[in-house]
Amino acid sequence: MKMREFQQKLREMGIDAAILYNMETNEENVNMHYLAGYKGYGFLVVPAKKRPFLVAPLMDIEYALKSKMRFYIMKKDFMQKISKRIGKAGKIGVDARKFSIFASKKFGKFLGKAQFVDIGQAIEELRLTKTEKEIEIIKDASLMTNRILISCINSFGKFSTERDIYNFLRIECIKNNVEPSFDFVVASGRNPATPHHIPNDKPLRKGFCVIDFGIRYKGYCTDITRTVYIGKPSKKETEIYNLVLDVQKKAIERVRVGGKYWEIEKLAREDFGKYEKKFIHSIGHSVGMSVHDSTTAMSSKDVTIKDGMYFTIEPGLYFPLRFGIRIEDDILVENGKIANLTKVPKELLSVKPKPFK
Amino acid sequence: MKMREFQQKLREMGIDAAILYNMETNEENVNMHYLAGYKGYGFLVVPAKKRPFLVAPLMDIEYALKSKMRFYIMKKDFMQKISKRIGKAGKIGVDARKFSIFASKKFGKFLGKAQFVDIGQAIEELRLTKTEKEIEIIKDASLMTNRILISCINSFGKFSTERDIYNFLRIECIKNNVEPSFDFVVASGRNPATPHHIPNDKPLRKGFCVIDFGIRYKGYCTDITRTVYIGKPSKKETEIYNLVLDVQKKAIERVRVGGKYWEIEKLAREDFGKYEKKFIHSIGHSVGMSVHDSTTAMSSKDVTIKDGMYFTIEPGLYFPLRFGIRIEDDILVENGKIANLTKVPKELLSVKPKPFK
Repeated sequence: MKMREFQQKLREMGIDAAILYNMETNEENVNMHYLAGYKGYGFLVVPAKKRPFLVAPLMDIEYALKSKMRFYIMKKDFMQKISKRIGKAGKIGVDARKFSIFASKKFGKFLGKAQFVDIGQAIEELRLTKTEKEIEIIKDASLMTNRILISCINSFGKFSTERDIYNFLRIECIKNNVEPSFDFVVASGRNPATPHHIPNDKPLRKGFCVIDFGIRYKGYCTDITRTVYIGKPSKKETEIYNLVLDVQKKAIERVRVGGKYWEIEKLAREDFGKYEKKFIHSIGHSVGMSVHDSTTAMSSKDVTIKDGMYFTIEPGLYFPLRFGIRIEDDILVENGKIANLTKVPKELLSVKPKPFK
Repeated sequence: MKMREFQQKLREMGIDAAILYNMETNEENVNMHYLAGYKGYGFLVVPAKKRPFLVAPLMDIEYALKSKMRFYIMKKDFMQKISKRIGKAGKIGVDARKFSIFASKKFGKFLGKAQFVDIGQAIEELRLTKTEKEIEIIKDASLMTNRILISCINSFGKFSTERDIYNFLRIECIKNNVEPSFDFVVASGRNPATPHHIPNDKPLRKGFCVIDFGIRYKGYCTDITRTVYIGKPSKKETEIYNLVLDVQKKAIERVRVGGKYWEIEKLAREDFGKYEKKFIHSIGHSVGMSVHDSTTAMSSKDVTIKDGMYFTIEPGLYFPLRFGIRIEDDILVENGKIANLTKVPKELLSVKPKPFK
């Protein structure tokens, strides 16, 4: 995506070429995947003024063909070849958070006096606003995400442990030919007090049960959370749940083109009043090819909400060793309009698991 | 694992402290996981002479508790804190392939004149031989892997596409509460000619069908491959299959304590005779917490086979646009003995898929 815009950016920054790489089998460099549509092992070279190309091993030729990029098969002398194609360069763009000191040394040898300049932030900024094509995929991904989470909540009577719920969601992903976008959180009893709780095999316990779920479909992520109640909530519990729900709804109402994302968090904190200290994470994050996308760009106080942005609104309250509540929707800004892509009902639902044997 | 040995190594290398980190949510730094049993986000600091510690965000507190390491909760001034605890250091050990130029700059500010020294290779060497505890896990993982792949092959009549097989394996992983150790390869028809083929939704075709499968159980990987035949193989096809099988069996017979791993490949290439050029990858790789483990250490010509080593033997032949064959077993060296952990039958099996609708 946005390869031309990236090359334009390189020229503006006075950079001769950018180099991205992935040297781990079974991992992916998401920035490379984003720019080139290539998720294999190897190198992406983007000259500011010439055609970009991949250097990919024979093993990953199917990924290279899928990317539709020009590519060369990786041979032993690939570093010399890359340097030769770049030519004499003053500035080389690299993703400083992903470019290792090992790679810097190796390339340093071939690139002579070239200086490395960080272009990570520039790619993040491109990723922050989605194209029409990306939006189409994201909408389809959201429909599937809603459907799976609704069917999960409707199947509660089949679950007796956190892992049952976790596995149900994972199997649904497989049946729908999508990947989980992260390690799902399923937390019952006291466990929701830890936002990143690891699902276990113990019986589901009375109280709030937080399910944080998302898929990756055609490279794009979703990330939604619902909190249900196992058994019957007390009046106080219902009150606290409704406070989180109100804060979340208000926060979504405040999303507007031209507004500041960080101000939505500021106001949500005010809305929480005396509970503000129990809201221990941020109001949300951008979503895209990573579930936490463009994190540096999005956390800047300068970020104003623009067309094409896609992010979560997810206030939560966490009472250590007692309970936790989180409600998370995926918000898309398209043609000046704010759309909530998450259609899973949010009113507090009382559910009954299957007895544990 | 082997934290004490690692600290010993640091002292031998004249390094004051090592710093490892993981700054990506939903990813793991395997070296950090190996040394500290911690797979969350944050930092691992290993002073050569003092107690190692983690710096972990509140979110990942469950992982930190599970690790049984001393840990500090990550706050804004964590870099200053780490530097303070390290004190005046001459040499700081970092994993040069994982340590970014961004991190190097950030730490550079706090660590003054300290010099970064690569300790990645040292960790790889520790990871190359497994402890008793690791071996126990690996054996259990292998039993489960054998069972799942045998049941997959026995279920062939239920599959009509590569994805059916792929999804069967993934669902078995979930049912057994284990993770896939990599993106499984399922390739039929001409597809096995590409070792890293991506499973598709087309009808399974007559010919060799390669299934490359592995799990990650308690942090440790397995990686095995079987090639079956859809329909009836010709005499020539059976011959070529049996050649790969012979080469594989001979290679395993040649594994001995004190021998060189690379020599096994050399001899396998000789055994392939005129087909040698069709054997387009290496004889195998070390396995451990990563499916391709200690890759730099293992590819060294100095590596001799030792107690505790655990690696694959996986010769294959690939005929572009025609077919491919690979047979891969997991070999463990324990108490001077060579054990083949892979018990899935290897004789060429003729299978019949479900008709495609």
